[in-house]
Amino acid sequence: MLRRVNVLLLLIIPVICIAPKALGDEGMYPMSELDKLDLKAVGLEIDPSLIYNPDGLSLVDGICKIGGCTGSFVSDEGLMLTNHHCAFRAIRDVSSPEHDFLTEGFSAITRGDEAPAVGYTVRITDSYRDVSAEVLAVVSAGMDPEKRTKAIEKKMKELSLAEEEAHPGKRAEVSEMFLGKTYVLFLYTYLKDVRLVYSPPLAIGNFGGEEDNWMWPRHSGDFSFMRAYVGPDGEPADYSEDNVPYEPKVVLEVGSEGVQEGDFVFIFGYPGTTYRHRSAAFLRYLSEQYMPVVVDWYGWQIENLVASAQGDRGRELALAARVKGLQNTYKNFRGKLQGIDRLDLLASRDRQEQHLQLFIDSDTQRRDNYGQVLSRLDDYYTRRAETTVFDLWLRYMLRSSETMSAALTVWENSIEKNKPETEREWAYMARNLDQTINSLVIKADTYDPQADALIMGELLRRAESISQAKQLPAVADMTGSEGQKKVRKFLDGAFEKSLLMDSDTLLKAMEMDTDELEEMNDPFLQLVAGLYPPFLELREENKRRKGELDQLQASLQEIKRQFQGQDFVPDANGTLRLTFGRVEGYSPRDGVRLTPLTTLEGILEKDTGMEPFAVPERFKDLIVAGDFGPFAHPELGAVPVNILYSTDTTGGNSGSPVLNARGQVVGLNFDRAWEATINDFAWDHSYSRSIGVDIRYVLWVTWKFGGAERLLREMRVDF
Amino acid sequence: MLRRVNVLLLLIIPVICIAPKALGDEGMYPMSELDKLDLKAVGLEIDPSLIYNPDGLSLVDGICKIGGCTGSFVSDEGLMLTNHHCAFRAIRDVSSPEHDFLTEGFSAITRGDEAPAVGYTVRITDSYRDVSAEVLAVVSAGMDPEKRTKAIEKKMKELSLAEEEAHPGKRAEVSEMFLGKTYVLFLYTYLKDVRLVYSPPLAIGNFGGEEDNWMWPRHSGDFSFMRAYVGPDGEPADYSEDNVPYEPKVVLEVGSEGVQEGDFVFIFGYPGTTYRHRSAAFLRYLSEQYMPVVVDWYGWQIENLVASAQGDRGRELALAARVKGLQNTYKNFRGKLQGIDRLDLLASRDRQEQHLQLFIDSDTQRRDNYGQVLSRLDDYYTRRAETTVFDLWLRYMLRSSETMSAALTVWENSIEKNKPETEREWAYMARNLDQTINSLVIKADTYDPQADALIMGELLRRAESISQAKQLPAVADMTGSEGQKKVRKFLDGAFEKSLLMDSDTLLKAMEMDTDELEEMNDPFLQLVAGLYPPFLELREENKRRKGELDQLQASLQEIKRQFQGQDFVPDANGTLRLTFGRVEGYSPRDGVRLTPLTTLEGILEKDTGMEPFAVPERFKDLIVAGDFGPFAHPELGAVPVNILYSTDTTGGNSGSPVLNARGQVVGLNFDRAWEATINDFAWDHSYSRSIGVDIRYVLWVTWKFGGAERLLREMRVDF
Repeated sequence: MLRRVNVLLLLIIPVICIAPKALGDEGMYPMSELDKLDLKAVGLEIDPSLIYNPDGLSLVDGICKIGGCTGSFVSDEGLMLTNHHCAFRAIRDVSSPEHDFLTEGFSAITRGDEAPAVGYTVRITDSYRDVSAEVLAVVSAGMDPEKRTKAIEKKMKELSLAEEEAHPGKRAEVSEMFLGKTYVLFLYTYLKDVRLVYSPPLAIGNFGGEEDNWMWPRHSGDFSFMRAYVGPDGEPADYSEDNVPYEPKVVLEVGSEGVQEGDFVFIFGYPGTTYRHRSAAFLRYLSEQYMPVVVDWYGWQIENLVASAQGDRGRELALAARVKGLQNTYKNFRGKLQGIDRLDLLASRDRQEQHLQLFIDSDTQRRDNYGQVLSRLDDYYTRRAETTVFDLWLRYMLRSSETMSAALTVWENSIEKNKPETEREWAYMARNLDQTINSLVIKADTYDPQADALIMGELLRRAESISQAKQLPAVADMTGSEGQKKVRKFLDGAFEKSLLMDSDTLLKAMEMDTDELEEMNDPFLQLVAGLYPPFLELREENKRRKGELDQLQASLQEIKRQFQGQDFVPDANGTLRLTFGRVEGYSPRDGVRLTPLTTLEGILEKDTGMEPFAVPERFKDLIVAGDFGPFAHPELGAVPVNILYSTDTTGGNSGSPVLNARGQVVGLNFDRAWEATINDFAWDHSYSRSIGVDIRYVLWVTWKFGGAERLLREMRVDF
Repeated sequence: MLRRVNVLLLLIIPVICIAPKALGDEGMYPMSELDKLDLKAVGLEIDPSLIYNPDGLSLVDGICKIGGCTGSFVSDEGLMLTNHHCAFRAIRDVSSPEHDFLTEGFSAITRGDEAPAVGYTVRITDSYRDVSAEVLAVVSAGMDPEKRTKAIEKKMKELSLAEEEAHPGKRAEVSEMFLGKTYVLFLYTYLKDVRLVYSPPLAIGNFGGEEDNWMWPRHSGDFSFMRAYVGPDGEPADYSEDNVPYEPKVVLEVGSEGVQEGDFVFIFGYPGTTYRHRSAAFLRYLSEQYMPVVVDWYGWQIENLVASAQGDRGRELALAARVKGLQNTYKNFRGKLQGIDRLDLLASRDRQEQHLQLFIDSDTQRRDNYGQVLSRLDDYYTRRAETTVFDLWLRYMLRSSETMSAALTVWENSIEKNKPETEREWAYMARNLDQTINSLVIKADTYDPQADALIMGELLRRAESISQAKQLPAVADMTGSEGQKKVRKFLDGAFEKSLLMDSDTLLKAMEMDTDELEEMNDPFLQLVAGLYPPFLELREENKRRKGELDQLQASLQEIKRQFQGQDFVPDANGTLRLTFGRVEGYSPRDGVRLTPLTTLEGILEKDTGMEPFAVPERFKDLIVAGDFGPFAHPELGAVPVNILYSTDTTGGNSGSPVLNARGQVVGLNFDRAWEATINDFAWDHSYSRSIGVDIRYVLWVTWKFGGAERLLREMRVDF
């Protein structure tokens, strides 16, 4: 370890900043930064203005957001390519024990067979502009942290609302780029009629399942085709038979000849959250306090939810997406914890900050302005750590079960609705309420009382060992020596008595005032009411914390910028970013080199006949038959399955198209390699690799296995 | 699997024969075949006569056999390089709980500190000649199989004795090259004073232990230095302080600059046994009948011996070599079984033999001569399978415990000693008796009654479920419902009463006649006496089997030769062979490439602080300090640890020097990669790789960690 760490130490400082001339592969570049990059020098073959052009159309306009994922338009009739795991809920929702499309795959024979993906929206970015000055005009130095946060939040909402008023039918969001420092206003179009077109069976789309998740070499066909529809007038509309396919402004060309090792590739997408500019204290807090609690609780849920649904295919289907989500985070966090340990990241961050402190202390002015930043960050996280177990318990108590989560939404809505629009919590603003209600109804439809009882029972049991929880009047009588019996009694009675998780009841409850809800005498609403005061306290405390942290974080970034003499690329925050790299392997350990293209051969090698490595017989026959059309790799002699590349991605990059030097779609991003789970904290060229489905595999499976030739023709692919 | 199997099917036929011009990497070539090879065309840079020269000295004369391993002379004062695991027993024997040289490493500061390796001999090949005609002159067509075997055995012994008479002080052995077909007489010199010079600690010499055994990437420093001594007159002599270092005829030059990926390398050694020319029926018998019984019994012994010695360092040391040997075979067999399955070897051999049968049947003469060969082989192994469980049980009963093994040797000796020399079993021939007694005494010295009681108890328990065993009068009263109690009673009494496992008693017993032994009233001798009739029956039956099989096997080889129009390289049989290949990696599965050089970096990566991955602190410091002298790889920037190459090796190649194109020692062979455990049945360039310690690691460890600069100077290595 020692030597490796020494090497990494040298690398960590340079990789977290934009080197003005030399370009590394790190960086999730906001569109506003692209003009600082010389993409042609690193391999791009088309004019950069074709990628992004604030004054006209460009490839960026062929990208959209589907749910939490990225999608791309691949035909002029609204056909979109995204991941299988992004379409998972839609496939599940159209599935039943009789028609199990997850197992069989879903293929719409004609356009009329395309199935509504209820609850899915497609978001298209229309424009954006920097509004930092306007936002920060509402705060002043020395302002109380909580007031600061609230003032900023309010201003962000006001700007959004104003923008929406100026652009009827559009939605506007202000995104914070650097914490407490830069803010950008995005204008979006939302399409609301989204349909499922083609999905391979889970045995292909999720081949390798949890076992292979976050792993390379990979052989997953993690892709699905969906389609966006609009009203006959071309405007966004709810589902209707009369709707027509959406005509995207830009259609991405499918590069069916694929990539070779060494090829330049780039990715657009909406990466979620990274933490590369945070302090050592943050990393220590996260890895030693926060993540272990999450890993423990998610692990418990996975084990117990899976066991509870075993053998009941209906419940298995209902819980599948939820368990998959838990597993994904669980394994990711374990990868992160392992990576922090492997790279000795805490020690190296500490050392960096020691050097930074020396720099600060070497100048009186700097010491006056920044001398306390690091120690105050330490202090901040020490205080956070004191209540982390309780804070998380309270969050899980109110959010881990669908029942409590719905009850909280209903209860909170009855309070928030009485506030002016710009002072409401985001979910309860008039402009967002439809979306909130929508997701309430969806959850109510797949609601599993058995799972919820299990989860609530366990959380109430855990309250016993958390002193702040045990003292809450709402649960105090369910702890102690007789606690478990009381918990069981409460849950038995509550699930029997409550009518809350019925869609109609929920819709009605969302109209009610607090006192009307109280009259319902619903046991879950009563429990939420009891937990609401500490919840509110925590919510407000989090605003205060954010206000405090934002200022410290802004100071830290400013002094790091001075120390390194360079600007940073802001951490990912769910807004549109570009990252580039090459198709290339890596060495996870001495003596082992992972190569960047996998093939059909590997599917047969992994086949065990059992989930998650059960290759359908018909698919095996197709592989052995070897009719690969134009989709075989010239040297490998077979269809490449997955590709590995050195771009900089994180969660939210799922479904992002992988584009070649000519801007053609050559793959579909869906995962990162195990060592790269640490990307969120530290990107490094030696281990940071993302994983995509090769477009040749997408096309070959859709054609030969799915029989959906119509889609290949629609995408103008020769075969 | 399907596709891979198809590919392999095409490969298997060519690789099991010598292609007269095109040279593959397969082949353990007897020295007699070397003139058929164009080694210069594949990369050798020196004249082939420098490698092997029947009329003069060559590199071959720098090779020796140490115990079951190969060694090489690396100085003109008898300094030999071999594997740590080959010197293991010697290190253990000089170790004690007070001076644990296995843990600490052994380093003789001066030549006077070099420690006698009791029981070790060094064998040097002086000459050889083909004696097939003389041997086969004693057999005739249609001879009874048992008589045939005995006649051949007797002739082989006569030839050996005659040769020894003609060369006083030398030893001669006739080796069977092709079963029942070709025989070669070897003349050997045996050196009897062997001493331990330098061995790294187990934490280096066996780094990775059982976990890494048969695995690549590897980081084991599996090397030791020993030295051969002779009497002051230069003749072989037993240990004496007056002895002087042996001056080898040829000293191998140490190539301290090492190898690069792609370099040509070759290996001399004494590979044990391969089975590439056997029938499908043999392979089926071995994998379905024989190996599962061995794996089961070895697995049981490993688990129970380890558990029984836990916490008792004295017993752990005493049992270490035994457990290590069991583990090695256990894991190797599991690798083989997995490989047979992975490559679908049974099905592909069946298919080859179907083609062979078609060839045979397509010609009347061929059908008359060979039409029944395959079906008779099937029949032969069907009959073998009927008694395999019992045959193995009986062997284990008499050989798995040291006590019973000694008792059997003593008992059998009392019978064999009355026969003429050439009719005795090998171990009891006057010329071999010293060696037999020697190993008896060595075993008695480390004899562990607790382990033996465990093993005998279990075997007696197992007799219950083996009908042929249960019926033996000697154990019949220890089976049945009351059997277990009787077994315990017998063992308790027997170990208390028996005096057999005392060196002096054993020596005396080896002088006794059968009736004198009976008078000893030793419980183990009594048990052996009871088991001896079925043992004798099995021994004679095995000679009959060998006679039957040899003829069938010779026929099979002859018709395969006709079918393929090519000669074979004979299967390995413990005689001197040469194999060559390149330093190269391989792909164990899709998307993974293993590279052929590992480095010190990997040792730090694997370090867990716990066995078998506990890197000594002082060694870690040395690695981090980075003072690699001339031993760093120019591109890797550090000392390479292990190397991987595509030669053709098997058990017995341990310790073989890896030689470069100029005939210099660049490594020390010690293992094969996991996929290559199947080598014994089917070699293939895609997966067959052998593993060696890089000479640069040997030199760097010996120098920097061992402080044995004197050895580097003795080898004329610059540092």
